[in-house]
Parts: sequence; structure tokens; C-alpha cells
Amino acid sequence: MSNIKPSLAKGTRDFSPQEMVKRNYIFDTVKTVFKKYGYAEIQTPSMENLSTLTGKYGDEGDKLIFKILNSGDYLSKVKPDLLTQANSNAMISSISEKALRYDLTVPFARYVVMHQNDISLPFKRFQVQPVWRADRPQKGRYREFYQCDVDVVGSDSLLNEAEFILIYQEALSNLGLKDFTIKINNRKILSGIAEVVGKPELIIDMTVAIDKLDKIGLDGVIKELLERGFAEADIDRLKPVILLEGTNEQKLDSLKTVLQSSAIGLTGIAEIETVFDYVQEMLKTDSSLNPDVELDVTLARGLNYYTGCIFEVKTNEVAMGSIGGGGRYDDLTGMFGLKGLTGVGVSFGADRIYDVLQELNLFPESAAVGTKVLISNFDKDAERYALPILQRLRRANVATELYPSSAKLKKQMSYADDKRIPYVILIGSDEMQTGFLTIKDMQSGSQKQLSIESIVELLKG
Amino acid sequence: MSNIKPSLAKGTRDFSPQEMVKRNYIFDTVKTVFKKYGYAEIQTPSMENLSTLTGKYGDEGDKLIFKILNSGDYLSKVKPDLLTQANSNAMISSISEKALRYDLTVPFARYVVMHQNDISLPFKRFQVQPVWRADRPQKGRYREFYQCDVDVVGSDSLLNEAEFILIYQEALSNLGLKDFTIKINNRKILSGIAEVVGKPELIIDMTVAIDKLDKIGLDGVIKELLERGFAEADIDRLKPVILLEGTNEQKLDSLKTVLQSSAIGLTGIAEIETVFDYVQEMLKTDSSLNPDVELDVTLARGLNYYTGCIFEVKTNEVAMGSIGGGGRYDDLTGMFGLKGLTGVGVSFGADRIYDVLQELNLFPESAAVGTKVLISNFDKDAERYALPILQRLRRANVATELYPSSAKLKKQMSYADDKRIPYVILIGSDEMQTGFLTIKDMQSGSQKQLSIESIVELLKG
Repeated sequence: MSNIKPSLAKGTRDFSPQEMVKRNYIFDTVKTVFKKYGYAEIQTPSMENLSTLTGKYGDEGDKLIFKILNSGDYLSKVKPDLLTQANSNAMISSISEKALRYDLTVPFARYVVMHQNDISLPFKRFQVQPVWRADRPQKGRYREFYQCDVDVVGSDSLLNEAEFILIYQEALSNLGLKDFTIKINNRKILSGIAEVVGKPELIIDMTVAIDKLDKIGLDGVIKELLERGFAEADIDRLKPVILLEGTNEQKLDSLKTVLQSSAIGLTGIAEIETVFDYVQEMLKTDSSLNPDVELDVTLARGLNYYTGCIFEVKTNEVAMGSIGGGGRYDDLTGMFGLKGLTGVGVSFGADRIYDVLQELNLFPESAAVGTKVLISNFDKDAERYALPILQRLRRANVATELYPSSAKLKKQMSYADDKRIPYVILIGSDEMQTGFLTIKDMQSGSQKQLSIESIVELLKG
Repeated sequence: MSNIKPSLAKGTRDFSPQEMVKRNYIFDTVKTVFKKYGYAEIQTPSMENLSTLTGKYGDEGDKLIFKILNSGDYLSKVKPDLLTQANSNAMISSISEKALRYDLTVPFARYVVMHQNDISLPFKRFQVQPVWRADRPQKGRYREFYQCDVDVVGSDSLLNEAEFILIYQEALSNLGLKDFTIKINNRKILSGIAEVVGKPELIIDMTVAIDKLDKIGLDGVIKELLERGFAEADIDRLKPVILLEGTNEQKLDSLKTVLQSSAIGLTGIAEIETVFDYVQEMLKTDSSLNPDVELDVTLARGLNYYTGCIFEVKTNEVAMGSIGGGGRYDDLTGMFGLKGLTGVGVSFGADRIYDVLQELNLFPESAAVGTKVLISNFDKDAERYALPILQRLRRANVATELYPSSAKLKKQMSYADDKRIPYVILIGSDEMQTGFLTIKDMQSGSQKQLSIESIVELLKG
């Protein structure tokens, strides 16, 4: 066996007990909301056939897919001339048949196509699993990270879009976030804008540019639009749309005027209005949810993909990129030969939400508690005395540990401190004689002598 | 985009909503027990540096590790002569730096060494994550499967061993298993036996052979022992030990006689007795747990690894290999330069436990229920009427769906059936007029007309 100083693979992370409890808190909270809205969990394998993934993420994406080397004599299928040319790209398909999943969307599409005879539509699923990308690691960007996706396929109803607004609102509120904005746009509005500007063929250039308004400002956007083939006159027509202000109703009114000659643009507006109407009706008798939804016509998010509503969520409490997003796509499974299946979905950025909760100190105390009480171990007699007590507490569902050897008290106390165990039971000769055990509250430092029955009652609560 | 008929990578599985609910039921049940016994969850990355994994699983194991191809021009670091020789083995380290985790033990050792300054000993952790092996797939053997490990390092107390017996007992009982045996042995007893037979150097051959008693019978074991270098006289001395019968006490008494000249053998016996004593004391006032523990001196399980107690769990209700096992090892982290850290741990075979519960029909009904009620959707008016009701039910934590379009009733009913939704609310013109909604129990087929308040009460329960 080699004797090396071990390290983590670049861009990957260990999760400690404290981190796991917090991560599980996030995942459990959002999963509970997903289930309440009728979504069910699925999982797909970490490795997919390379052919399933290749060509789905563009050339840049293809390069970032982690490929798995074939087992055994993997070079045996490589043509000799490829070997001598040392052509990495040309050789890949001969030495690698499998790859690690790059996102949850393509595996989900494969799942739907492969199981189309077993699932009933609309199919509402959520999926929380890691994905892998050979990106250059940097602060906040990892090569292994969890995605948390919730999608419905086989339903064109805009009720689904409205429900995603409520899912965001409920999940993020349950996590303790108070001030966040759910931005919404519609690809058809963007198409309409490109149409009335007279450059429908430049829709992608237009959206890529105006999507950057937050980052590069209006002047930057105009500069980029000019570079991408728009004329000054186009920009004069675009500017009022980009700078649209006011309430959602005011924006929609303005857009109706601007887009009056574009059928597709008006459809996009009507879709947004229907979504707003659904949300309003659903919340008619429910004041507990009050989402801050904002129509933002500069929102684009991977436009080549979305065909209807587009979502993005931003927290206003911390400087942070979007903590979620998604939208409607009309041909998820077309890549695998199943045409015409519409779908809509959103995702939660679990790592960013973690950082936000951490910064705002929103993780609940309870999310830090594992073991509730440690029984000290002074000597063999005390240990023996403690054994049935240990099991009695566990039978009452109290997470309990007996320190496994008779170490110095200081060591046992610092073990409890490190594990943030809130109570310690001290058993010495007095305690064994009277049957009243000393229980110490580690936070306050106060001690009490209690019967085992009272201790069980205290800790069960 | 390519238009291919998609398939799964060989040896991998999708998990449907129904399967996920059952899998989560198993994982949640065992995790709850782990936590009650003071164990905390960690996770490690799916990919480790190849050097972390290589050499830890033997030559055969090394071949079964999935290697990840380096990104970019991966051939650029390969020496030209290696390329022309087409030597797969020699080239691996030049084109692959990372690999998928093969088990949870080596990553855990790496974790302990890397975080040795942050963790306090004893460190009690559990870990439930997938591992990958390039095995030939066959029935019940997959290339991606979950391991479910619970270990403590930094404590030589036999209390830990006793607690693992209770953890098995409690977790498997909570899953509904009624008749299973927790087998125990001790590496030191095996060493003692090899010693008194006079062939201490053949201990591995001896244990490999007698470990097969269940499968190949006594004659098979004797044949193999002879092939492996034991003499007839050795076997005469071994036979009574292999065939040891009676209660645990009787077996221990016999062993004390047989092993009286072996110090290590007697230590092993004393360790088993201490473990039994701990279990007995802990359960003194607790009749809820009554483990069937059986001393089995033929039990070996990866002996080169274990140094003290060895465990294996078998169900007696279904023909199935072991559903769990583990033991004590004295040098987990030595491979990474941290010497002298003892540990003990066990694992649960989640896939096999799944099959056992399935065969015994032990998954609870509740583990099948996702959405509790579907609200039907006859037309736009009924849909609008349903929207606030939908949200009202969700506010009461009832998992509710509104069918997202006004499809034929038959289609909506079969949607509810497929998803095993137990109730459907029907809203027609009568219902909208009276405010009393029809609620149908999908199992019995019976229908009632109830106010929304009564429906909330009914479904909340």
C-alpha cells in the first residue's frame, strides 16, 4: 500500500456532520414542498452512455463532460493510426463509452422516453442528485455539485407555471428567507420584441445582450447590440422596452401597445397574465404566501431552450447571483425521438441557498443538534451502572451516547462541546447511591440532580 | 442533436417514484437509528484522486475501479512509446488522475486523516452514498449501488461492538424483519485456532476454507484445507472447532479448553464475552430488543482487514446472502500515514434489504402514498372555483393536485389510480352551487358530499 498524504480531487468537497445537517435541512425543506404540490422523487444513475450526453450541451459543454475510461484493455478497440496520431478527441469514442451526468435535465428526458409506457402524463417529478462538470474550479464553483430540479412534462396548462411561483415562495419562505424576488418573462414576448424591432433573426443576439443589463448597464447593452448587428434606429425602438418601469400591470399595458402588431408577442403577454391570474385566485383565501413577482423583459436564461415562461429568483438580502430559475420548453424529449412533449420546470441552487442562509444566520438551532445527551464514564462501576440508563433513554427516542471509556472528565466534556451535545449526565458514587443523577446543561452550565424518570421526561420534550 | 433510442449504461438503474419512496423508507429508518446511537452523517465526493484508491483493494479490485479520463488533450502527457505499444495498463496514470469511489471505507480513512485536526475522537460517523464497481453485471449485482456504513474510529472500547449489535437489532426490527441472526466471531479466536493447530502461518488459508462451510459442506472444507497445506492430523484437531454446536456459552466453554494454550485465542474469547455482557446489561430493563446473536467460529469476512470482532447478519425468513456485516480493524488510516487509529464499523446491504422487504411484503402502505387528493377539472369555471381550495388544502399540509386541464373524467381518474392517489374531489355545477364537494375514496369507491372544512379535517388526519 502506498503511504501518501491524501488530498481531495480538485474542485470537490467533503461534507462534515455540521454541514450535512444544514444541507439536509435545505433539501428536506424543499422536498417537503415539492411533495405537497404533487411532485414525486426519481433518481437516475450517475453514469450515462456517453452517446446519451454528447451533443446536448453545445461544443463547450461536451468538453466539460467527465468521461469514464472503459474497463480492461481499453486501447484494444483503438485503430492504430489514431494511436500514433495521438489525437485525443478522435480517440474518445473508442476508449470511453460512459460519462458522468452533466445535469439532471437530459437524464430526465432519457428517463421519460425509456419509461413512457409506465408513467402517466402529466408526469410530475423532482430530482436531487449531484452532477459533474470539468469546469475550472473557483470560489463557489465546484466540479461536483447538487442540482435540485422539479419539472412536469405532458401538460401545457399555465397552472403549472403559477404553481412554480408558489413552490418558490413557500420553499424559500420556509427556509427563512424574507425578501426575494421571483422574476418572470416569456420567450414569446422576446420573440415579439425582436419582431417589432424588425430583426426577428437576431432574437438570440438581442436577448444575450439585454440579459446583461444588470451587469454591464444600458450603455454596455447598446454597445453590444450594435456589435451584434442592430442599427441605431432598432435600438431607439428597443430602448423603451429594455427600460420598462412601473408595476407589472403598467409594464404589461406598455407591452401591449409596443407589441400590438406581433401575434406571438401578444400571446406571451396573455400567458403572463394567465399565470398572474392563477396565482391571485389560488391565494384568494391564503394570506400566508405573498410572492414578490416581477415581470422583467430583459430576463432570458438559456433562451435557445425555453419556449414560454422563464423564471429566475434573486434574494434581496445578500449580494448573490440567482438562487433559482427555470422555464417552459416544448421539446424536452425530441432529442431521443419522442416529439411534442411539452414541459416546464425550475431548479433550486442549493449551494447558493446554503451560503445565503449561512450569511443571514438562518439555519435553525435544531439543525445543529445530533446527540442530545452524553453519559459520562468515570470508571467501570459507573459504566456498568450507566448501561441500562443509556438504553432506556434511547428507547424514549433520545439520541444518547455513553462515553466509551473512563477518560478524564475534561476530555469527555470537550467531546460533548465539540459535538455540541446540549446535556451531559454525570454518574459518580453519590449518584449511584441515591439514584439521582446529575444532569448538566452545557449551554447555561447549570446542574440539577434528577431521577432517571425525570431526566427522560426532560430530554424527551 | 443526435436522435438515438436511449438506453441505460450497463449495470445501472433508474429509480421510479414508487421505488424511491421504498428506498427512502429503508435509508430513513436506518439513519434514524444511527443518530439515536450518536452517529452523525458525512459525505465524501464521488471522485477521488486515483492515487487515493489504487492499491487499497488488491489487484482484482484495482481493475474494477472506474477511472475518469482527464479533461482536454488527455494524450498530451503520454510518452510516445507508450502510445505505440498500445499498453492500456501502463498508460492509465498518464491519462487518468481521478476515479469513482469503490467503497466508503477508503474515502472515510482519507477524510479522517485530512480532517484529523477538526474532528474529536472517538469520531462516530455514518455515510450513505453510491459506490461504483466495473463488475460484470448480473442479477442483484450492479455497477452503481448504495453502501450504508456506520463506523467509529478512535475508541477501542467493546461497548461499540455491543452497540452495533443493538443498532442492527433495532434498525432491522423497525423495518419489520422478525427472524434474523446476528453472527459474531473474533479474528483473535481464528488466530488462536491456527496457532493450536500448529499452522499459524496458514491462518488466511484456514479461514478462507472454513468460511465456506455453509456453501460447500464439511467434506468440501476438508478437501480445500488439504489442498491449502493442512495435514490430516491438523484437520482432526480443526474439525471439532468447525463443528462446534450448542449455545454461545457452551461454545465459549469448549473454545476455552481448545484454546487454553493460545494467549491471543483467549483474548478473543474474553472480547466476545465482554460484548455479550455489555449487550445484556444494556437490555436489562429493555425487553423491546432481543437480538438473536450467534457465535460462529467459521465466520471470516475479508479477514486480512479485520483484527477483532467480526459481524454478519442473515435473515431467516428469505433465502438471501448476508444483509449486513462488519468488524473491527486496527489500522484504517495507516495507508494514509496516520498510524494506530483503531475503528469498528458495520454496513447494511440496502439493495438486499429492499428485496427482502419486497418479498415479505413489509413496505408500509404509507410508504406508497405521495399526493393525498386530486381535484378534478371539468371546465374553466370548475377550475377557477377549485384554485383557492387547492391552496387551502396545501396550507393544511395536505399534498394536493388540481388536474391541470379539463380532460375527460376517465383520464383524470386513471391519473389518480396510476399515482395511487387515495382521494379525488369532484367539482361540478351542483357542488359549486351548494358549496358541498363530492369526495371519492378511490379504494372503496364510496362518495360523500362534504363542506371544504370537513374535507380538510378528513384529509389532515
